[in-house]
Amino acid sequence: MRNIRLVLQYEGTRYQGWQRQESSENTIQGKLERLLSKMCGETIEIQGSGRTDAGVHAKGQVANFHTSSLMSTQEMLVYMNTYLPKDIAVIRVEEAPLRFHSRLNASGKCYCYQVINSSIPDVFRHRYALEYPAPLDLPAMRRAASFLIGEHDFKSFTSAKKGKKSTVRRIDDISIEKSGDVVTFTFRGNGFLYHMVRILMGTLLEVGEGKRPAESMPELLSSLNRELAGPLLPAKGLTLMEVTYGK
Amino acid sequence: MRNIRLVLQYEGTRYQGWQRQESSENTIQGKLERLLSKMCGETIEIQGSGRTDAGVHAKGQVANFHTSSLMSTQEMLVYMNTYLPKDIAVIRVEEAPLRFHSRLNASGKCYCYQVINSSIPDVFRHRYALEYPAPLDLPAMRRAASFLIGEHDFKSFTSAKKGKKSTVRRIDDISIEKSGDVVTFTFRGNGFLYHMVRILMGTLLEVGEGKRPAESMPELLSSLNRELAGPLLPAKGLTLMEVTYGK
Repeated sequence: MRNIRLVLQYEGTRYQGWQRQESSENTIQGKLERLLSKMCGETIEIQGSGRTDAGVHAKGQVANFHTSSLMSTQEMLVYMNTYLPKDIAVIRVEEAPLRFHSRLNASGKCYCYQVINSSIPDVFRHRYALEYPAPLDLPAMRRAASFLIGEHDFKSFTSAKKGKKSTVRRIDDISIEKSGDVVTFTFRGNGFLYHMVRILMGTLLEVGEGKRPAESMPELLSSLNRELAGPLLPAKGLTLMEVTYGK
Repeated sequence: MRNIRLVLQYEGTRYQGWQRQESSENTIQGKLERLLSKMCGETIEIQGSGRTDAGVHAKGQVANFHTSSLMSTQEMLVYMNTYLPKDIAVIRVEEAPLRFHSRLNASGKCYCYQVINSSIPDVFRHRYALEYPAPLDLPAMRRAASFLIGEHDFKSFTSAKKGKKSTVRRIDDISIEKSGDVVTFTFRGNGFLYHMVRILMGTLLEVGEGKRPAESMPELLSSLNRELAGPLLPAKGLTLMEVTYGK
């Protein structure tokens, strides 16, 4: 038995997200499992580092699967990129220790959210960024973001249903950089709750527009109340950049 | 009467090129003329700086049209970007002298052709660049390109039918730059013949692969024989970057 680790890119536009669904043909996991099962001649189940939602993109999603196939990792790379649709690509295939688990062993994730801060549409980037023409106060958004760094209960920033699972996460860094008309928000942390980055983004843009003071973030965090946070922003601006393992 | 000058961007993927056709709904010119006629309340004909072929993109196409509408240029900009499809955008609208003609007055054009020089597909760029995994010798391609600079008869590099029109053009500069896996070929000149950049590209990549010596370019130019040049590369890698007027 072998354990194979993949690094994947995809443009999420056409897909109902990562997770295989009985009711939908069109998931990244489903596409990959059908192809891998054909490639390996056995039923393959693939484990992703986490689910990405419908419309979310990835530049560095990590996944793994077990197989008894004798194909080399290089042969797998070529086979997969030959038969995958144009909007999914495998950028790395490697042997992993048998116990490696792409979700349980992940120690950190990095997401980017891109905003086109212009009233002029961008025909080349509209699939990967949110058009948001209102002027944005970057220093205010950076001040607001600074209150989010560290370990907090992010219950105010998730659409997850009530449950027993912890909503405590650690954010290590949020950077907000403008280049031309594009503002890139980069979030690094040990993990992110369901919809967390997109609700943080909706809240930060309210700060950027002057609709909410940067200094209200500590109170919002401690309220543990989703209704007090900003709106859930569209999936298309969000990209999973990297999953890290170990220290 | 007013003469309005537009600067346009489009992703050409979905379109049958710039030029209006009776048989096709799906041309950039057709889309613009239908919208402008509605906006101005009169039949509008728009003149582009040149036709771009099916699948070719633009970041700085220039066009103009005459109208008696009293709308301000700012109102036109907002109206057009509100109703145009996501893959066409107007980035500038301005009054032009009544005699300004976007094609006849153009003094220069700049095109880019992008090549993804990797065996790994690029899910975010496959619409705008040609995937070409073979190793490329950049210095050899630059040497070959240097023979093309200046005024030449480019008959070997066009698909245009025989006719009385001159096939003499002047190329001012060709730059070939690599950034990561992407090689960008930038062509500047006083004008380009039908398919010229795409056939130049097919020829340069043959040089880059070692299939044709860089030093064969002068002979190829003077042969005036299309059959001796390289293949016509796909439209999707090509983008009209800029049209210049005056000196």
